[in-house]
Amino acid sequence: MGQTSIGDLINSKEREQIKSMVYEHKNIAELKAGEKTEGFYLIKSFEVRKTTAGKQYIDINLVDKTGEVNAKIWEYSKETEKIVIENSIVKIRGEVLEWSGSKQVKINKIRAKLSTENIKISELIPSAPIETSEMLDTVKSYVKKIKDVQIKLLVENIMNKYNNKLLYYPAAKKNHHSYLGGLLYHTLRMIQSGEKLGQVYDYLNMDYVYAGVLLHDICKILEMDSDEYGVVSDYTMEGKLLGHIIQGIKEIEIEGEKIGLNREKSIVLQHMVLSHHYEPEFGSPKKPMTPEAELLHFLDIIDTRMFDFEHALEGVESGKFSDRIWLLDNRNIYKMQD
Amino acid sequence: MGQTSIGDLINSKEREQIKSMVYEHKNIAELKAGEKTEGFYLIKSFEVRKTTAGKQYIDINLVDKTGEVNAKIWEYSKETEKIVIENSIVKIRGEVLEWSGSKQVKINKIRAKLSTENIKISELIPSAPIETSEMLDTVKSYVKKIKDVQIKLLVENIMNKYNNKLLYYPAAKKNHHSYLGGLLYHTLRMIQSGEKLGQVYDYLNMDYVYAGVLLHDICKILEMDSDEYGVVSDYTMEGKLLGHIIQGIKEIEIEGEKIGLNREKSIVLQHMVLSHHYEPEFGSPKKPMTPEAELLHFLDIIDTRMFDFEHALEGVESGKFSDRIWLLDNRNIYKMQD
Amino acid sequence: MGQTSIGDLINSKEREQIKSMVYEHKNIAELKAGEKTEGFYLIKSFEVRKTTAGKQYIDINLVDKTGEVNAKIWEYSKETEKIVIENSIVKIRGEVLEWSGSKQVKINKIRAKLSTENIKISELIPSAPIETSEMLDTVKSYVKKIKDVQIKLLVENIMNKYNNKLLYYPAAKKNHHSYLGGLLYHTLRMIQSGEKLGQVYDYLNMDYVYAGVLLHDICKILEMDSDEYGVVSDYTMEGKLLGHIIQGIKEIEIEGEKIGLNREKSIVLQHMVLSHHYEPEFGSPKKPMTPEAELLHFLDIIDTRMFDFEHALEGVESGKFSDRIWLLDNRNIYKMQD
Amino acid sequence: MGQTSIGDLINSKEREQIKSMVYEHKNIAELKAGEKTEGFYLIKSFEVRKTTAGKQYIDINLVDKTGEVNAKIWEYSKETEKIVIENSIVKIRGEVLEWSGSKQVKINKIRAKLSTENIKISELIPSAPIETSEMLDTVKSYVKKIKDVQIKLLVENIMNKYNNKLLYYPAAKKNHHSYLGGLLYHTLRMIQSGEKLGQVYDYLNMDYVYAGVLLHDICKILEMDSDEYGVVSDYTMEGKLLGHIIQGIKEIEIEGEKIGLNREKSIVLQHMVLSHHYEPEFGSPKKPMTPEAELLHFLDIIDTRMFDFEHALEGVESGKFSDRIWLLDNRNIYKMQD
Amino acid sequence: MGQTSIGDLINSKEREQIKSMVYEHKNIAELKAGEKTEGFYLIKSFEVRKTTAGKQYIDINLVDKTGEVNAKIWEYSKETEKIVIENSIVKIRGEVLEWSGSKQVKINKIRAKLSTENIKISELIPSAPIETSEMLDTVKSYVKKIKDVQIKLLVENIMNKYNNKLLYYPAAKKNHHSYLGGLLYHTLRMIQSGEKLGQVYDYLNMDYVYAGVLLHDICKILEMDSDEYGVVSDYTMEGKLLGHIIQGIKEIEIEGEKIGLNREKSIVLQHMVLSHHYEPEFGSPKKPMTPEAELLHFLDIIDTRMFDFEHALEGVESGKFSDRIWLLDNRNIYKMQD
Amino acid sequence: MGQTSIGDLINSKEREQIKSMVYEHKNIAELKAGEKTEGFYLIKSFEVRKTTAGKQYIDINLVDKTGEVNAKIWEYSKETEKIVIENSIVKIRGEVLEWSGSKQVKINKIRAKLSTENIKISELIPSAPIETSEMLDTVKSYVKKIKDVQIKLLVENIMNKYNNKLLYYPAAKKNHHSYLGGLLYHTLRMIQSGEKLGQVYDYLNMDYVYAGVLLHDICKILEMDSDEYGVVSDYTMEGKLLGHIIQGIKEIEIEGEKIGLNREKSIVLQHMVLSHHYEPEFGSPKKPMTPEAELLHFLDIIDTRMFDFEHALEGVESGKFSDRIWLLDNRNIYKMQD
Repeated sequence: MGQTSIGDLINSKEREQIKSMVYEHKNIAELKAGEKTEGFYLIKSFEVRKTTAGKQYIDINLVDKTGEVNAKIWEYSKETEKIVIENSIVKIRGEVLEWSGSKQVKINKIRAKLSTENIKISELIPSAPIETSEMLDTVKSYVKKIKDVQIKLLVENIMNKYNNKLLYYPAAKKNHHSYLGGLLYHTLRMIQSGEKLGQVYDYLNMDYVYAGVLLHDICKILEMDSDEYGVVSDYTMEGKLLGHIIQGIKEIEIEGEKIGLNREKSIVLQHMVLSHHYEPEFGSPKKPMTPEAELLHFLDIIDTRMFDFEHALEGVESGKFSDRIWLLDNRNIYKMQD
Repeated sequence: MGQTSIGDLINSKEREQIKSMVYEHKNIAELKAGEKTEGFYLIKSFEVRKTTAGKQYIDINLVDKTGEVNAKIWEYSKETEKIVIENSIVKIRGEVLEWSGSKQVKINKIRAKLSTENIKISELIPSAPIETSEMLDTVKSYVKKIKDVQIKLLVENIMNKYNNKLLYYPAAKKNHHSYLGGLLYHTLRMIQSGEKLGQVYDYLNMDYVYAGVLLHDICKILEMDSDEYGVVSDYTMEGKLLGHIIQGIKEIEIEGEKIGLNREKSIVLQHMVLSHHYEPEFGSPKKPMTPEAELLHFLDIIDTRMFDFEHALEGVESGKFSDRIWLLDNRNIYKMQD
Repeated sequence: MGQTSIGDLINSKEREQIKSMVYEHKNIAELKAGEKTEGFYLIKSFEVRKTTAGKQYIDINLVDKTGEVNAKIWEYSKETEKIVIENSIVKIRGEVLEWSGSKQVKINKIRAKLSTENIKISELIPSAPIETSEMLDTVKSYVKKIKDVQIKLLVENIMNKYNNKLLYYPAAKKNHHSYLGGLLYHTLRMIQSGEKLGQVYDYLNMDYVYAGVLLHDICKILEMDSDEYGVVSDYTMEGKLLGHIIQGIKEIEIEGEKIGLNREKSIVLQHMVLSHHYEPEFGSPKKPMTPEAELLHFLDIIDTRMFDFEHALEGVESGKFSDRIWLLDNRNIYKMQD
Repeated sequence: MGQTSIGDLINSKEREQIKSMVYEHKNIAELKAGEKTEGFYLIKSFEVRKTTAGKQYIDINLVDKTGEVNAKIWEYSKETEKIVIENSIVKIRGEVLEWSGSKQVKINKIRAKLSTENIKISELIPSAPIETSEMLDTVKSYVKKIKDVQIKLLVENIMNKYNNKLLYYPAAKKNHHSYLGGLLYHTLRMIQSGEKLGQVYDYLNMDYVYAGVLLHDICKILEMDSDEYGVVSDYTMEGKLLGHIIQGIKEIEIEGEKIGLNREKSIVLQHMVLSHHYEPEFGSPKKPMTPEAELLHFLDIIDTRMFDFEHALEGVESGKFSDRIWLLDNRNIYKMQD
Repeated sequence: MGQTSIGDLINSKEREQIKSMVYEHKNIAELKAGEKTEGFYLIKSFEVRKTTAGKQYIDINLVDKTGEVNAKIWEYSKETEKIVIENSIVKIRGEVLEWSGSKQVKINKIRAKLSTENIKISELIPSAPIETSEMLDTVKSYVKKIKDVQIKLLVENIMNKYNNKLLYYPAAKKNHHSYLGGLLYHTLRMIQSGEKLGQVYDYLNMDYVYAGVLLHDICKILEMDSDEYGVVSDYTMEGKLLGHIIQGIKEIEIEGEKIGLNREKSIVLQHMVLSHHYEPEFGSPKKPMTPEAELLHFLDIIDTRMFDFEHALEGVESGKFSDRIWLLDNRNIYKMQD
Repeated sequence: MGQTSIGDLINSKEREQIKSMVYEHKNIAELKAGEKTEGFYLIKSFEVRKTTAGKQYIDINLVDKTGEVNAKIWEYSKETEKIVIENSIVKIRGEVLEWSGSKQVKINKIRAKLSTENIKISELIPSAPIETSEMLDTVKSYVKKIKDVQIKLLVENIMNKYNNKLLYYPAAKKNHHSYLGGLLYHTLRMIQSGEKLGQVYDYLNMDYVYAGVLLHDICKILEMDSDEYGVVSDYTMEGKLLGHIIQGIKEIEIEGEKIGLNREKSIVLQHMVLSHHYEPEFGSPKKPMTPEAELLHFLDIIDTRMFDFEHALEGVESGKFSDRIWLLDNRNIYKMQD
């Protein structure tokens, strides 16, 4: 059975209240029923549907960096349909309603973003807090710090191979760092921490610490299918059957052979990738057998946990606990009073 | 401090008893203190040592297929020392003594095996019950049963690469099938069982069952260093840091690429190798996702267990239990009455 | 509060579309909203209810081998009610509608199956792919292969005792082999596999392999209450408090005593039943201590897994993964491209 | 090689010291090197051996309730050998020496216990602190408290069947209650605790509490082979392959059938035996499903633990910790200051 | 969107049936659609809402000791709203309807309880079966049995500190003993059991058994926020970050110091609190190291389990099983036939 | 029985060889049979014993920072005995022999260290690589970085309380950092790492990071009894019954109360101590609920692992694996080629 138009159910007094408000831009997370908004959003997906009365309308999912909301264009026209393009940026005017407990935007006006309008993509989709090109530069500056010529060349070659995808790949399908540039951001913070801990534990061979961080997750690019907004639709066939750890090992083996990488160096780097999840049940059938491999694991998990804690505490009041966080073993995280 | 010669401690009456006995060949497992033996044994290792009195003697470890025993040549001479060569076959005459609870052979005569003397190596070292060349022929006959031309070629290439080593490699450093030809014997029985279960579960793709069995453990050849008697001195560096599962995956990836193997087929075969230990804590970070991979695991474990049970029951009396078998989770295995 | 008739909600244009279609038989799994069907189905359960308007109607659950669907007879009459009998086969004519996301059949005509109409029960309920009488014959042919006269008599006596129920009992309440004849089908494939593996591992005592397979699950007949269609309503009191493993052990003890079965043979068979689930947490407080008991476990689990994989892959496209399969540890199973 | 006589190695001054001391009776646990003892001990085992010099001597293991010690009779004679009978009580005079860190008794005089000498067996072997006949009477007084006539008869029949063995069987091969009368002592304290907790949790059916306690371990008599001193040489074949839980279930099934015991009562009692170890890995594939079965488990484990703690604290000084106790998960038990 | 009034949907015949019935008091658990009730209930919470038609009504959650039910006052008035006070007792007259599968009471009359009406609070909220003041007296009588003057004083001081809250605190937020007086009831039954088991295991120091029971859970009063009806809204900040075990240890440390409690006694009592959950994953990082600490654990778990079993069996028919009980590891509990 | 003097068993030729060598100082780890040494060592323990021949000699255990060795003074005199004092430094001249596979020093000359001889204690006992007073200064410089006045005062007070013991306490009885100054060294490197990671994860509250590190293990001083050489003889009674985590919590509670520390700050610090072992089975019943607590755990474990890896690799050749390291889950650690 078709869906009754929400427009039919809201009473006319409420409609009047909405109309009298001024349009101004609001982030999706801030939308409240009864308010208006005007501004740029990204069309994630859309469908042309019919009401039970047989009237056509367009059902759209809008996103910005703060979240996602369903929207409707009740007045269908061929011209409007042309504007509604998946993954394009549009400017809309709309009213916020509530339907079955969820927010919904009734779009009154819509048009495509003009080429003259300069909208930052990071405003419209969840993304790392630093521009990806800037992160990539910083990360590459660490490649230069690798002293062993062969290892440096190996890392350069592999990073260049995936240069474009590094600019938008997330570090995961969901959970930590699952946004545009997440893979780079994760790599960046790990390598910074690695550099600093190398000052405390100065017996470590930093070439392996740097190369290990730079290569440990790079085959997530082969494991997952991400669009250019950092949204992963699914894992790849090879990703499911083998996983990024195995894929990363093969990458080092093959790219290493191409440049005549010393066999011991290649195996030790492969071992670092193999062992970085530490526990067999998390994907590492071998535990680290060098101190650099051991450290790599902790750099990885610290970055993940510091990320998860930071996000878990967003929106929690001082002196209160978060809800149970599944990613953190169902802990309730506490936000200290200032 | 040197070791007192056992010859000094035994009293003369006992010596007389031993001398009066006739020399006849005895397997090492059957040696009893107070008896004599004459026959061929293999020298596993030896050392020239001195008694506390400063007299030189030769300390030898002899083996045959039934076990290992320490032996001494108390009368040292340069000539004798030339005969004593590691891994060579010698004929000895000796008396069996007991020293600190262990058997020990006092060698009275020793000479090298003559080239005219035809001694089967399988008499002198633990080895599979079928000749390895015969096993290799049988196993190769299964390669011919693979219908997919690419997969058949892949398997042929990899097996040819390791053809020589297949003729003596064991399947393990210790535990199951850790003897000459053990890897082939394990492979043989698995592929026979696989063929038969394929008749019951006829929806299976037998090309993958056969290729999976043939490739699943082949990189044990890269994981372990075995001498030509099937004795593993140690794991290789790559074996310890990566292991035969990862090595096998890389082998398929690289050899597959060489012959232009269809990508899906390559990945599915790599997945079979990856998942054949089934549990992460036993080395498989992914569980089988195809029925052929699932079956491969069970063919592997059944062969291992049937081997372990067969050997656990050797030497157990009817109606009695074995000692606790560590390999079988410390079970006491029961030997039924006939 | 009563349920509004779906007939009142669908608009008249859609009704016309349905009427113009020709009636033809469709399996329940294939039913699509907007189509018609005519043919034989089994009435699993029914209830006479009232609409909110106080009008009587009959609510029926129809099944065939492909699934289950809810149906309604909106025009109630005493005569119609007489036709509607639980577990009887009826012929119907109906239109397929959709209600709250589920299919529903509006029955326009219904009559009982005539005694002259020959409908195979296996068309109407999920059942093993081989006729149960045929399976029973095959299974019994293995009893004859048991050489030990006492063991053969024991197995014969126990199988005869449950002969009738064997013809329809499933092997489980849900999950694997939970359909008519499932217990026999499970037993059949296990014994066939056992016979074949006995050719590879020829030191096994096949009398115990055969007897073990034939007896290992037979007390599922005492553990569960199944109707003659292989549908288990619940576990029995003894089934819940003790379970089929304990029940099977007592069966062998008692039936063995009746025929003067040698005590060792009885205990070893009881041990096979006791240990066949292998792990304590799956119901086996003792692990197998004979090779035949060890093999029994693997025959059991292989048959279960090969069954689960086969069914998991039904309806999956080539080159795609199934959804997560709970029975297979939440794995996504991969269907290879042809 | 034979064992050098300890008599040859001790110097004569030490011998003189020993000789000058008075003989008096000492418990084995109290023996100190350099002292003498005279009194009754039990011969656990003995062997006639030869020194390296070819001289015969008798090697004896003596026990009393406090422990075990090795002893030697260096002056062999046929007459002496006749006195030395396994499991017999002898009176000896001897000197305590130390050999390789262990105590050893040099027996100077030995004779059989005279029939007129009244030595309590509980002085010579580890045994429960209450006379077994007294414990059996007390335990049987609880049978009379069972109100259900059928259940009372069942328990009586089974207890009478094992009446004699109950008088000496231990509750285990080693560990808790592994001494003469241990099974009865364990049963006694459990039934006393059960009676008392039944006063707090008064909704319990005490017939099942009493019957459960009395039957839960009774088939340990079938599981283990104990001599009349409460020393278990080994588990029985049935004990190893099935275990006392399964044996106990069959006992109730069969003895219940004999007296026409109501089926529900029989199954519930069998369930109590089945579930009393609580965890699958400790032998119970089903957890308790009645409150009486649940309590039975706790009565069992409390008695075991209270026993283990009591014994762990024996010989520990106030304010000190025991060594790690394996039976108590390697805990160091603390003995409070008074 | 607002909720349609249930009153509009029920047909008039049903209304008539309801009206003709006599009002009589029914416990909430017994309410059946189509019946009336009249009597006292407690208002747990309420809200003034609007129907879609814009009409105000009051939505109330009523409780008594048997459960909770939603109720509506469709005829809103300011006067009525004044009567509806959270946590107050009211007398109502109402009709029971069914809405979306749940019971709902349509309140026709409502008034506050008169001060002259004597309603036992234990009728209106779930509470322990014994009056809390009576339980407190009994529990305190055990304090007097403590012979050690210091320990007795410690326990008295701590109990007096929490005297008022002991009179209503539950033992848990949900699950076992989560009702008014639950903490006292749990303590009472444990101390009674402890006294009795101390008669069987008479080597125990009863001072520690009594003090351990009395103090083991007392800091649940600091861990949880309970209202005076024994309903816990949440855990406290300290409760979440440390937990009642750690809080209890600090309590003994500090209160002990105040009275100059002997250091050993204080530590041993703290250890009892620390170890009473037994397993690290349940909150005890140390296992019991004294027999009294060991017993304390079992007294605790027995009382919990006997409570859970008793409640699981409420409302189960003889000869039937309960549903799966999450608290009891998803067991189905069996109720024996009488 | 006494021990035969090793001097009697070595032949005279060997003696001559030893005598002809020059005495020079050797670390205990470098001692080789047949060599001589002269220099300062610490007497860990000693005993005056007798040979079987009744001659007195002194048995001494000598240590330096590299290890421990047994030594003998065969020529006993009253004067010599006066020199041999536990925990004193002596200068010796001796020859190294081998006895039953262990090194042993035959001391020819011995005298006490003169007060004018300046021997660094860190040469004679295992100790941290930085002087403890220097470490303490550095660690205290971090206390000054704490901005919160109350928290700073709390940390100062607690550190001052244990100032003296901090200068020598090890961090463990055995395993990581179990040497003089180990506790400080562990604290130092953790706080340095914490400072650096705080630069990467800049949302952290560094006051808690610093205070957490400084307090997390400080009650190891109460948990263990260490002598002034950093050698732990045993755990304390309170250490065994409660452990340093619980002791640390009480310390903060009580010291916090003394200075009126804000309750939230106190609880959060206590929580950090409570949760720093992370897993219940390692002693933390609560997991970290603040990011600073989470980080504290990783600082702790990284320092432990980096320590263990560094030491595991000592003495391993390049390109080789260490033996299995129990502390590192039995891993063989790999030392890369340079």
